[in-house]
Amino acid sequence: MGEPGTTRRRCWWGWGWEDQVVSGDHLTRLAQAVAGSLGTPDLEVWPPPRLEDLVLRPARLTPPEPLAKFCAVDTYSRAAHTHGRSFSDAVRAVHGDFSVPPDVVAFPRDEAEVVAVLDWCASAGAAAIPYGGGSSVVGGVSCDVGDDYQGVVSIDLGALDQVLDVDRVSRAARIQAGALGPALEEQLRSYGYTLRHFPQSFEFSSLGGWLATRSGGHYATNYTHIDDFVESLRVVTPAGVVESRRLPGSGAGPSPDRLFLGSEGVLGIITEAWMRVQDRPVHRASASVHFPTMADGAAGARAIAQAALFPANCRLLDAGEAASAAGVTTGSALLVLGFESADHPVDAWIARAAELCADHGGVIPDGVRTSSTEGAAGAWRSSFLRAPYGRDALVQLGCIAETFETACTWDRFDELHHNVDEAVRRSLAEVCGGGTLTCRFTHVYPDGPAPYFTILAPSRHGDQLSQWNEIKTAASEAVLANGGTITHHHAVGRDHRHWYDRQRPTLFAQTLHATKTTLDPAWTLNPGVLISR
Amino acid sequence: MGEPGTTRRRCWWGWGWEDQVVSGDHLTRLAQAVAGSLGTPDLEVWPPPRLEDLVLRPARLTPPEPLAKFCAVDTYSRAAHTHGRSFSDAVRAVHGDFSVPPDVVAFPRDEAEVVAVLDWCASAGAAAIPYGGGSSVVGGVSCDVGDDYQGVVSIDLGALDQVLDVDRVSRAARIQAGALGPALEEQLRSYGYTLRHFPQSFEFSSLGGWLATRSGGHYATNYTHIDDFVESLRVVTPAGVVESRRLPGSGAGPSPDRLFLGSEGVLGIITEAWMRVQDRPVHRASASVHFPTMADGAAGARAIAQAALFPANCRLLDAGEAASAAGVTTGSALLVLGFESADHPVDAWIARAAELCADHGGVIPDGVRTSSTEGAAGAWRSSFLRAPYGRDALVQLGCIAETFETACTWDRFDELHHNVDEAVRRSLAEVCGGGTLTCRFTHVYPDGPAPYFTILAPSRHGDQLSQWNEIKTAASEAVLANGGTITHHHAVGRDHRHWYDRQRPTLFAQTLHATKTTLDPAWTLNPGVLISR
Repeated sequence: MGEPGTTRRRCWWGWGWEDQVVSGDHLTRLAQAVAGSLGTPDLEVWPPPRLEDLVLRPARLTPPEPLAKFCAVDTYSRAAHTHGRSFSDAVRAVHGDFSVPPDVVAFPRDEAEVVAVLDWCASAGAAAIPYGGGSSVVGGVSCDVGDDYQGVVSIDLGALDQVLDVDRVSRAARIQAGALGPALEEQLRSYGYTLRHFPQSFEFSSLGGWLATRSGGHYATNYTHIDDFVESLRVVTPAGVVESRRLPGSGAGPSPDRLFLGSEGVLGIITEAWMRVQDRPVHRASASVHFPTMADGAAGARAIAQAALFPANCRLLDAGEAASAAGVTTGSALLVLGFESADHPVDAWIARAAELCADHGGVIPDGVRTSSTEGAAGAWRSSFLRAPYGRDALVQLGCIAETFETACTWDRFDELHHNVDEAVRRSLAEVCGGGTLTCRFTHVYPDGPAPYFTILAPSRHGDQLSQWNEIKTAASEAVLANGGTITHHHAVGRDHRHWYDRQRPTLFAQTLHATKTTLDPAWTLNPGVLISR
Repeated sequence: MGEPGTTRRRCWWGWGWEDQVVSGDHLTRLAQAVAGSLGTPDLEVWPPPRLEDLVLRPARLTPPEPLAKFCAVDTYSRAAHTHGRSFSDAVRAVHGDFSVPPDVVAFPRDEAEVVAVLDWCASAGAAAIPYGGGSSVVGGVSCDVGDDYQGVVSIDLGALDQVLDVDRVSRAARIQAGALGPALEEQLRSYGYTLRHFPQSFEFSSLGGWLATRSGGHYATNYTHIDDFVESLRVVTPAGVVESRRLPGSGAGPSPDRLFLGSEGVLGIITEAWMRVQDRPVHRASASVHFPTMADGAAGARAIAQAALFPANCRLLDAGEAASAAGVTTGSALLVLGFESADHPVDAWIARAAELCADHGGVIPDGVRTSSTEGAAGAWRSSFLRAPYGRDALVQLGCIAETFETACTWDRFDELHHNVDEAVRRSLAEVCGGGTLTCRFTHVYPDGPAPYFTILAPSRHGDQLSQWNEIKTAASEAVLANGGTITHHHAVGRDHRHWYDRQRPTLFAQTLHATKTTLDPAWTLNPGVLISR
């Protein structure tokens, strides 16, 4: 859990690198700013736990000799694999709740060791929790699997971080599933390639995690879902290895890959994949489009999505986000529009998109910017990737700070937006006496947007979890009732199970159960996620 | 099986409308031309069978009273549902082999009747064969299900042909699965929409068939696979109805829709789907690009596919096809390139594509054509859609006339093309003493093309089937050995099972078996397709 060649270490209780955690003066200034914006009295800073104070329950499992050399049972390793990185995880961690740690953390160094550790788990009656970057915000890597298991082994794929093969003709790469975003991009960069998949968790999430959760990248349209980059997968299941054939397209039965995409570690552990990569973009054009209202902006974004122009960015911010993220204080909604290409200038593309915006009242005060560098988009992305550190700081300040997201068809959006907004604000008022709720589109499709909501509310140390649970319930019920999906790109995990079970067809769940039993007869893998015995 | 408002009737032994079948002088002239091009002596015309001569085996099933009103047992209906429309089917049909007809043909008029007929099949121990347009070229609608069933019921969904709902905001339509291409497009046209899915079988294939076989449309890139147009599905399985939620995107577990896409009628009968539709294109630009060799053309097509320009057409014809289909007799390979948009002129797009072609030796003798009508592309499509009538005529002339297709990554293409070409030519020489083999790309992806091969060879009445089986085996073995898929868009059916079983991961087959048993406990649906008990 360190950075190669440095002494830098991953934070065991919160997001990211230990040396990047918000603390000291930084934290004090944040406290003052947040207290001001929420109109609450001074916020009490709860210091994060210290490793030397932590006493974990004794490990219930001992790895057999051949496995011991890549397994860890030390406190740091077990603590660092206890939680994912949701708001609830952060609250528990900051408050020192590490009551359900893994008994053992395995760090297999090759596929044979993945097989060996899974075999051991099955024979020992242990649960196995596949662990990529550990960035799950839905309880996907939690060790809280109930009483049916003799112990829990967290299987950290971090050592499988290599780009193994590059096909320069087909523009594809065979990549080990444990590679985190930066390591993967750095290796591809030497070929002039990029996977160009930048979820907010990019720095601390892995290819395997992206695949298992159907990750959505930073980009707004077309090639943004990890699903669409997959040529083939290699998956270790308790019943054996599944490997699909490397193909650009096929009509041979239901897609085997699509069974594992979104399977969240319950069917097998993805060990490697042939992924479609891209040339690095060199042509860019961007614009900040101001719209009178969110509804106008939505109409503009819809027109662009339906025109098959395929912008890289088409990120609509409501007035609240436009103010906080881009300093637009006129009450306008803001559409962050950007085109990129490795092949050709994109002037014609953005010119047409600007016309479509104008049709819906969009204006571009600063004009269209063309450049060969990332410019504003790069700055946005860097602040975007740093956001989770700030979230942990807010947890230390006793706030509620969390996001939730969905997708719906365009015909449902206005009503969904209105009803979700109303339900969550009502809940915030009742539960926290106030707070802020903002909305943006993370992705736009020809038939609908993916709205993403951010909550910041005052709370109190000790009340954060129960208050958040009430708000999350109100949000999820409203999303489901208004035709949204319970998750667009945050996955299901353990936290969304209640709503997922209502969303997915009942008979489909039965087929998933049968599939699970076929591939994982002892139900070793990630119990509680997606499906129950 | 008739055209509404006319007395036109579907041909019961071959492709399409009875009044469009190639016959008389037409057939005589074709015989002379083919004899000339194959260098064979005069071809003997085998006349198609006459309905009045046909004696089918007695029906082994009688539909119970409530079902009888939408079931048929007459000779025309049973004969018309005996075969799909592959070359082998045509040979059997022309030669009067209707030895394995369905016992009953059901024409359910609503979903309740689909449920009722499936229930009856399960309780009667009968096999149920879902039948959309009947255009399968892989034995997907064959009634040859072995001895384990008390009879066979072909379930023709043709009465479920309505566009039920149109969402003009999200640009989507709820369409019944039995709608054939023309009926579906005609209904969408009144809204200014198109599904824009034009497989060669367009006139006689149905939405449900496209979905169940992961159909590839006429277009070359991006939105061409039916998979990508699906918002949600409604499927009747023997265990109950499965309906997914209408969503533009979702990360909630493995996609339920993707389980049924490609399921070829073995898991359930798709009754309706919410489909993403498109505005009708009004801007067009096209060019015929000549390349010195097929390899040069492939390099040009690859550059365009990897540049994210998304042409509607990017159809590379080898010298043989360029000569026969486009009159290009210089030995050049020909790239039929076209861009379309409902939103914006596509000049910038085709200009860049032309530059990429020039980089690989492509020249455009006639220049780029821009127009707001379909022009040459429309003419190509019309001749493309008529091709199956010609195929049936060739069957009557005792020829072998069939196609096969695959997809592979670009790095494999040259070798696959060479080895498949060699294997098939060797087989043609051994089996038929000669024949022609040509190749084109039907689709191009960033990471590979979908090569499509066409065979025309002399044979003899009585030998066509066994000779074709030898050639097909040689072709399929070469495709599989060289990294191709056994089917890119023709599906698996019964005819590709042998190779499909080797291509798909064994454990995936076990999950499919478990899924099948869950949804269709009596194994009523389409026995022999994809998976066996």
